[in-house]
Amino acid sequence: MTELLPNYAAGRWQTGHGTGAVLKDPVLGQDLVRVDSTGLDVPEAFRFAREQGGAALRALTYRERAGLLSGVVKVLQAHRDSYYEIATANSGTVKNDSAVDIDGGIFTLGQYAKWGDALGDVRALRDGDAARLGKEPVFLSQHLQVPTHGVALFINAFNFPGWGLWEKAAPALLSGVPVIVKPATSTAWLTQRMVRDVVEAGVLPAGALSVIAGSSAGLMDQLGPFDVVSFTGSADTAGIIRAHAAVAQRSARANIEADSLNSALLLPDAAPGSDAFNLLVREVVREMTVKSGQKCTAIRRILVPQDVYGAAAEAIGAKLAGVTVGNPRNDGVRMGSLVSTAQLHAVREGLAQLSAHVDILHDGRQVPLVDADPAVAACIGPVLLGARDADAASVVHDVEVFGPVATLVPYRDMGHALALAQRGQGSLVTSLYGADEAALGHAAVHLAASHGRVHVVTPDVAQAHTGHGNVMPMSLHGGPGRAGGGAELGGLRALDFYHQRSAVQASPGVLAALGL
Amino acid sequence: MTELLPNYAAGRWQTGHGTGAVLKDPVLGQDLVRVDSTGLDVPEAFRFAREQGGAALRALTYRERAGLLSGVVKVLQAHRDSYYEIATANSGTVKNDSAVDIDGGIFTLGQYAKWGDALGDVRALRDGDAARLGKEPVFLSQHLQVPTHGVALFINAFNFPGWGLWEKAAPALLSGVPVIVKPATSTAWLTQRMVRDVVEAGVLPAGALSVIAGSSAGLMDQLGPFDVVSFTGSADTAGIIRAHAAVAQRSARANIEADSLNSALLLPDAAPGSDAFNLLVREVVREMTVKSGQKCTAIRRILVPQDVYGAAAEAIGAKLAGVTVGNPRNDGVRMGSLVSTAQLHAVREGLAQLSAHVDILHDGRQVPLVDADPAVAACIGPVLLGARDADAASVVHDVEVFGPVATLVPYRDMGHALALAQRGQGSLVTSLYGADEAALGHAAVHLAASHGRVHVVTPDVAQAHTGHGNVMPMSLHGGPGRAGGGAELGGLRALDFYHQRSAVQASPGVLAALGL
Repeated sequence: MTELLPNYAAGRWQTGHGTGAVLKDPVLGQDLVRVDSTGLDVPEAFRFAREQGGAALRALTYRERAGLLSGVVKVLQAHRDSYYEIATANSGTVKNDSAVDIDGGIFTLGQYAKWGDALGDVRALRDGDAARLGKEPVFLSQHLQVPTHGVALFINAFNFPGWGLWEKAAPALLSGVPVIVKPATSTAWLTQRMVRDVVEAGVLPAGALSVIAGSSAGLMDQLGPFDVVSFTGSADTAGIIRAHAAVAQRSARANIEADSLNSALLLPDAAPGSDAFNLLVREVVREMTVKSGQKCTAIRRILVPQDVYGAAAEAIGAKLAGVTVGNPRNDGVRMGSLVSTAQLHAVREGLAQLSAHVDILHDGRQVPLVDADPAVAACIGPVLLGARDADAASVVHDVEVFGPVATLVPYRDMGHALALAQRGQGSLVTSLYGADEAALGHAAVHLAASHGRVHVVTPDVAQAHTGHGNVMPMSLHGGPGRAGGGAELGGLRALDFYHQRSAVQASPGVLAALGL
Repeated sequence: MTELLPNYAAGRWQTGHGTGAVLKDPVLGQDLVRVDSTGLDVPEAFRFAREQGGAALRALTYRERAGLLSGVVKVLQAHRDSYYEIATANSGTVKNDSAVDIDGGIFTLGQYAKWGDALGDVRALRDGDAARLGKEPVFLSQHLQVPTHGVALFINAFNFPGWGLWEKAAPALLSGVPVIVKPATSTAWLTQRMVRDVVEAGVLPAGALSVIAGSSAGLMDQLGPFDVVSFTGSADTAGIIRAHAAVAQRSARANIEADSLNSALLLPDAAPGSDAFNLLVREVVREMTVKSGQKCTAIRRILVPQDVYGAAAEAIGAKLAGVTVGNPRNDGVRMGSLVSTAQLHAVREGLAQLSAHVDILHDGRQVPLVDADPAVAACIGPVLLGARDADAASVVHDVEVFGPVATLVPYRDMGHALALAQRGQGSLVTSLYGADEAALGHAAVHLAASHGRVHVVTPDVAQAHTGHGNVMPMSLHGGPGRAGGGAELGGLRALDFYHQRSAVQASPGVLAALGL
């Protein structure tokens, strides 16, 4: 049997008592390691994190906690090569795709270390200016933010075992809130290894960071009124988390990031062959293929003027035809596998669900795999679909296929395009392509109401723009409605989730004694 | 039969088809009016508000919407006397207590009108400065806030039929979000009358403000991903709302304000007879008796040094003995009735639940009512309880009696006092009484983690402080955990709930075209 990875909880390594779940290589089909949390004293794990970890973190200032993050960055950089090896073996990703997860996580930690350092040696944050509560300035209201006296539980998704931990842990630890991460089982190895390295390096106080891999049963039961839970995954599981007594009855805060039907929108002025047209094509192909389309932010719907539909289908299809798929260890391969055969089945099911309502404009499923056995590997080539009747094809706006799949959707005019983008019922991100700044600005403000991020690609930022699907720590990550209603990142805005805002009403003398 | 009050929905007055629920005079026992929403086309009501009301409001700028609020203020001021009459008849409150609800609501509207005017003639709000997404400032991230394209449903509590509507509607309407209010049945008359006056004055666009009185059945079913619901009431109902499919599955945002076990804390340096001691006694008596203790923010637990316990009991009891209770129409009465006999029963039940674990330090139940029949009137005199063993008396920290009842709780030292305050598991407000600014500042920051507001009373603000239980629109109203985790008011912070935050990533040229 393969190695059984231990959990790190209550300040010590603890191996589950069961046989565990096997993590596999999705390309070669081999067993890699096992995870299990059977028999773990879960209440002790939460108590230790909340009491020991929380007290130790809150005893530090923001600047000191920023220093902890810098320490974590150094540890992760020192072990970077081993993370790439795990990603190749367990996630089936090519090097460039592993980088999004591994280096993306390290970059995000580094940003929060920098921003946290600038907060200085304080233990509470000033929130706005003091406001008078009467005509004379003798009794005032000063809002402040203080770390919540609880623990942060992260229930994470399989597609970002590295970044998914650190993009949440960076603001949590900086806020003084201890973290317990429950990674998705299929790719839990990288999360567990990163936590192991950080624990062994001794750069965090005891109880600040724990990892429990295996079943999530019983974790939510531990959450009390000052704890928080941050979930990334399906809308169905999100519904279960929101309705759990911890959230519904005990008011534990929940942050949800669910995948969504993100769109890319080519503005009416962008003719085939124009810079904006070419930028859209490039970005769509990148989004469909990076991490085999397994990103919550990936483009799922491509909205183009109806007279551009044919040209767009042709241009995107031509580029997709050049994408090699197979074993990520082979340098000739551009796109590796999905994370598991279960995901491969889910993608095939999704395609079957859509196919009754759409045309297939490019079918990468026919292309032979490079250096991989199609009977074993969880690989699938990119598939471009087309929905000629954009309004009637509801399924295109409702069903997300979490793989290298997107649908081209023609629109009549700008009003129609905006309405179609909003048919996603709330998305993480939309991207706009065009050259007319006024039209782009107008569309951006309109779509801001239903999107957590609006990414605008004009010809002058062809080289500088950071990509539709790349989540930059400076910008909000999360969207309303279908996307879960969550709010992650966005610079220091991310700290809000881990803080309690409070208004202190007092004399100027008492306010001066708050130590802000 | 008494008058059946119509609902205002889908831009027209609509009377329910049922016999309705009868609203009563809680002092005289007479029937007043009836409310009913049987047969109402609820989907139409929400659609009309969302589409007609939302579009009309969003077409205006923040300054123009602030102007609408000023218009509402004028209407309410013109009809102020009739509101006092309804409050006396339906809520059983004396004039000073009616003012908290009526003039408090008008004051809050006026504040938002002022703050909104300063936002200027824009239709989206800038949220922080643009951040570079690379080394050169050629591609930037600008966060903004835009009104959500949905409707705001308010499910309100019986204790504030006036203020409870306007403290929510002011930020909602200013944000460009239409309002549907469902008042608590027992005191729905004042809410309905205020909406009636505003509608008849024609100061708001069609669909901006609706009132549905009677059953709340089916209202939550109408909420979609861009709608919000703001609930004030019991923790039990809050749990139902959070677990409803609208919130749990469709990601409608929910704001919850549940009542809580708020505390007042006399610091160790405040000896009997000191200014701080006297200020605590005065504030406790005021909080126990204003609106007969029917305020979510009222003091429920009075934490005092153990050697001050006897003196505090005596001083508070002496003042409570002077409180006259009975018919609010009699000028000799200081405290009117509870809002209903149902509430009177609930208070008696709560007292019975507590009485096994506490001493009765002052019992106003023995004092005869003024000008009211004890067999009919929902009146009850103030009751001061005492829990000598503060740690063992869990029920004191768990069970809220929503009436003129509070419990005196002795503590050993400051650490013990802070721990006891936090036994409330998250409260709306705590107040601190003392003269040592450093000690007060330290306690305030500590308690901020579990309280939405910390009200600090020092001798120098004896006249200027705004009261433990008074909710000032400048300060956050809401608390974590047991208090519901909500966030209302706090100046312009209240607008967040009605906005979607979004990050626009674009060139400086496009950002300049956002119209911020």
